[in-house]
Amino acid sequence: MAPSWQELAADKQKRINDSIPQEWRITELPSSDSVFDFPAKSGILSNRELEITAATASDLVQQLAQGKLKAVEVTVAFCKRAALAHQLLNCCLEFFPEKAIAQAQELDAFYEKYKKPVGPLHGLPISLKDQLRVKGLETCMGYVSWLGKYDEDESVLVTLLRKSGAIFYTKTSVPQTLMVCETVNNVIGRTLNPRNKNWSCGGSSGGEGAMVGIRGGVIGIGTDIGGSIRVPSAFNFLYGIRPSHGRMPYAKMANSMEGQETVHSVVGPMAHSAGDLRLFLTSVLEQEPWKNDSKVVPMPWRSAEEETIKRKLQGGLNLAYYSCDGVVMPHPPILRGIETVVSTLKKNGHKVLPWTPYKHDFGHNLINNIYASDGNTDVFKDINASGEPAIPNIKDLLNPDIPKIDMNQLWDTHLQKWNYQMEYLDKWRELEEKEGRELDAIIAPITPTAAIRHNQFRYYGYASVINLLDFTSVVVPVTFADKGLDPAKENYEALSSFDATVQAEYDADAYHGAPVAVQVIGRKLSEERTLAIAEEIGRLLGNSVTP
Amino acid sequence: MAPSWQELAADKQKRINDSIPQEWRITELPSSDSVFDFPAKSGILSNRELEITAATASDLVQQLAQGKLKAVEVTVAFCKRAALAHQLLNCCLEFFPEKAIAQAQELDAFYEKYKKPVGPLHGLPISLKDQLRVKGLETCMGYVSWLGKYDEDESVLVTLLRKSGAIFYTKTSVPQTLMVCETVNNVIGRTLNPRNKNWSCGGSSGGEGAMVGIRGGVIGIGTDIGGSIRVPSAFNFLYGIRPSHGRMPYAKMANSMEGQETVHSVVGPMAHSAGDLRLFLTSVLEQEPWKNDSKVVPMPWRSAEEETIKRKLQGGLNLAYYSCDGVVMPHPPILRGIETVVSTLKKNGHKVLPWTPYKHDFGHNLINNIYASDGNTDVFKDINASGEPAIPNIKDLLNPDIPKIDMNQLWDTHLQKWNYQMEYLDKWRELEEKEGRELDAIIAPITPTAAIRHNQFRYYGYASVINLLDFTSVVVPVTFADKGLDPAKENYEALSSFDATVQAEYDADAYHGAPVAVQVIGRKLSEERTLAIAEEIGRLLGNSVTP
Repeated sequence: MAPSWQELAADKQKRINDSIPQEWRITELPSSDSVFDFPAKSGILSNRELEITAATASDLVQQLAQGKLKAVEVTVAFCKRAALAHQLLNCCLEFFPEKAIAQAQELDAFYEKYKKPVGPLHGLPISLKDQLRVKGLETCMGYVSWLGKYDEDESVLVTLLRKSGAIFYTKTSVPQTLMVCETVNNVIGRTLNPRNKNWSCGGSSGGEGAMVGIRGGVIGIGTDIGGSIRVPSAFNFLYGIRPSHGRMPYAKMANSMEGQETVHSVVGPMAHSAGDLRLFLTSVLEQEPWKNDSKVVPMPWRSAEEETIKRKLQGGLNLAYYSCDGVVMPHPPILRGIETVVSTLKKNGHKVLPWTPYKHDFGHNLINNIYASDGNTDVFKDINASGEPAIPNIKDLLNPDIPKIDMNQLWDTHLQKWNYQMEYLDKWRELEEKEGRELDAIIAPITPTAAIRHNQFRYYGYASVINLLDFTSVVVPVTFADKGLDPAKENYEALSSFDATVQAEYDADAYHGAPVAVQVIGRKLSEERTLAIAEEIGRLLGNSVTP
Repeated sequence: MAPSWQELAADKQKRINDSIPQEWRITELPSSDSVFDFPAKSGILSNRELEITAATASDLVQQLAQGKLKAVEVTVAFCKRAALAHQLLNCCLEFFPEKAIAQAQELDAFYEKYKKPVGPLHGLPISLKDQLRVKGLETCMGYVSWLGKYDEDESVLVTLLRKSGAIFYTKTSVPQTLMVCETVNNVIGRTLNPRNKNWSCGGSSGGEGAMVGIRGGVIGIGTDIGGSIRVPSAFNFLYGIRPSHGRMPYAKMANSMEGQETVHSVVGPMAHSAGDLRLFLTSVLEQEPWKNDSKVVPMPWRSAEEETIKRKLQGGLNLAYYSCDGVVMPHPPILRGIETVVSTLKKNGHKVLPWTPYKHDFGHNLINNIYASDGNTDVFKDINASGEPAIPNIKDLLNPDIPKIDMNQLWDTHLQKWNYQMEYLDKWRELEEKEGRELDAIIAPITPTAAIRHNQFRYYGYASVINLLDFTSVVVPVTFADKGLDPAKENYEALSSFDATVQAEYDADAYHGAPVAVQVIGRKLSEERTLAIAEEIGRLLGNSVTP
């Protein structure tokens, strides 16, 4: 008899656990809500290893390139901390320290011989969302039915990062289907937020959020079709960038709804600083990914674009912002987060005008229809193949009984999307014409809530409308929810029944301490400028490197 | 009773004819096969007007910018010649000299007042394919059912060209549906080739091919989803560029199968010199079209990319070529055309290696399935709405009774396309790795025939596979078929029944004098480099400005 889905999942869990060496095992799991400080106190990492895992990627590659650090010691430090992360947070779908250390040894040998690094990421461990394929490993992507298939080919991004000197050691957990912003699957269960086990780590790149959040990784790779890089970055007080489609190579990665191209999923980094996001992007672009992946635009990193922003940093930025998209009112901590950013920018002489969100309700509905355009056939095929049930978020979100749209309806959808994008550009230009200068970016919530309690993520519109527009967006960590500063609104009149539900779930005590972030939004393919603005906002907030 | 389609078409024909002033009318149409020299001998254009219409666009804008020419005289010259072109070749769906002259007067007044041009195209008449919308005019696109609808909005490209100083005076004919490479519709009938009325002007931008071919226009705007810029360029001894998707703004143009995005139609110029193509592209990019059309990549003209090629012009280019795609063997004039280009390049010290076309049969079939993915619903809806019949090429090509593919089949098609594109890039890289240097471009046929006889255009693969790959391609005019040099092959063994049909139609006498061209193919978004190579090939051939 074929094994049940439960047996397949249990076997996978065992295999992951078995990959953790005995000496890295936690003998007694902490009972506290937060495990954030556990690695430092565990006794499993040396002080040197704690220092290494607390550094930025930019520092690490510099020291590695100078020979002050060896790839092996950096790799061991992150493997140890990642092992703790998995035991504490349940965030790994693959963990392979032996392969990682072997790769590190090769890099050290190269350095020894040639006295130079192989590339700009020489010896840097990078954590991979379980959509990226690595030869010889499984990519299950949260589907039990995908277990047992071992990759024979490698994602283009993995190949290019390897050429740059990056080391791989883990593939992190995702929600079943990838289409939701919490991280639960029937393979290993739920991934938790290191700062509070009652909070979601976000999703779908939630394993990365938890892993990098607790510094089991220094740069994690996520993907984003409706917030999946930005939400876990926000919920873990990280920086994260959703590049526009065509900037980073997505080729040969696994995906749900593969081949759906009305709204593209994109791949990008999550890290503790804007500088580390830049290090990742520039390192990948140096490899000319457009020569491997036909969807990548042949556009090297444009330093001149960064310089344009840098020249405006002394009070010359022209920004806009919105606190509410007109559909769902953010919780008080998020409103305070936006206000903090806006007032900080103004205090530093920058111009920050109000932005009127243009038809976000329309955009939110349109992208939801796009996600469901095959009547959810693809995702339910992969769920049902093993007999596993749909996870709660999916049950809420996806109807298995709706019809596919047909080809002419799809073409009509494409036109609606294009027109909406152009109308949004018109609004952008109108403000520029009114002001007589460029609008550099828009500041907005990325979620209506701080790091959310489990099974409460309902409203994707703050994130997903930006995907529909294909704008570049960078998440900047701002502050933490505070029950003293963020009381619930009294006598609030809801904008909609959706809004009423989201509002009702606000609880100042439950959210106390939860990370609060904003997103900085630039036009399509504006990674250099938007990241430079995000970096400056983080600097002004005092969050240029996050704890 | 509603008018019949014949009545609607007759009314449109009358309206076009009525737009031609009496003094520009031809009293006796020539009976010769070629009308190429008619304008010079007509007596309708003055010598000065003949000089103006024989100049390059680059010369004209320079003289206009210096005040040596006035916009009105340039406009009148082209309007006159275009009027002759329509009477000789049946190439206009709209002709509006009064509006054009009014626009020219405004530009002259501006120049008079400010002593400078409004933009880089100040006073230059540009001819528009009848997909581009101009306020107040009809866009019928060869469908009788679209007659009588007057545009209230303007295509983004029209708006941006207008800002650059371009003048509009005609919208040229297209085949019903746009989906074929000859130009026949039931609105005005067939457009002819100025060099021989028995030859096709090509299509779907065939009106542009004929109009610019006879110099009723100096730059014409075409579109290309399967050869529609390149084929009429080739058949009229013109330069033409198919930019990659995302380089030029297509927004708010009319189209068949609007919203179909698996293979994008692209817009680009056709002209008598590579320099004029560049003038068009740089002028449009100067307007930052990405701020208006969300599909445009924010990529200004990259002079550094051109310089990279220019540095290689002294025998340093690394090229590849193929004469046959493995599906249909080109006719003898085309094989001689390729041979001429290859030997000329080699003689000038450049490296030209053989290229093995990679799975072009697969690519050709895949793109045909994409064109038909809605079961041809969209095009037959527009054909049937008036009761007009399908034109012969469409009857050959499109089956009204095939089913639509469904959403999951479409997604599978997207994956097949992406994989094919990447495999092609792999081949490109492999050659580069073998040679230890960049492969700058590939030279290939654009059609298997010289300018073809009517109703014989059957094989689109040389063009359409390049659309599927989204490579940049520039057509370079090479030579003319010659019955002395290009005898039919004897005892030829056909590659396929398709090939047998195409071969059987070769007739050295009938093709004698027909234009022969090649295409120069670069990777995606390589307009600067590929155009620079095309320009050099034209220069080496002595065709840098075509007659």
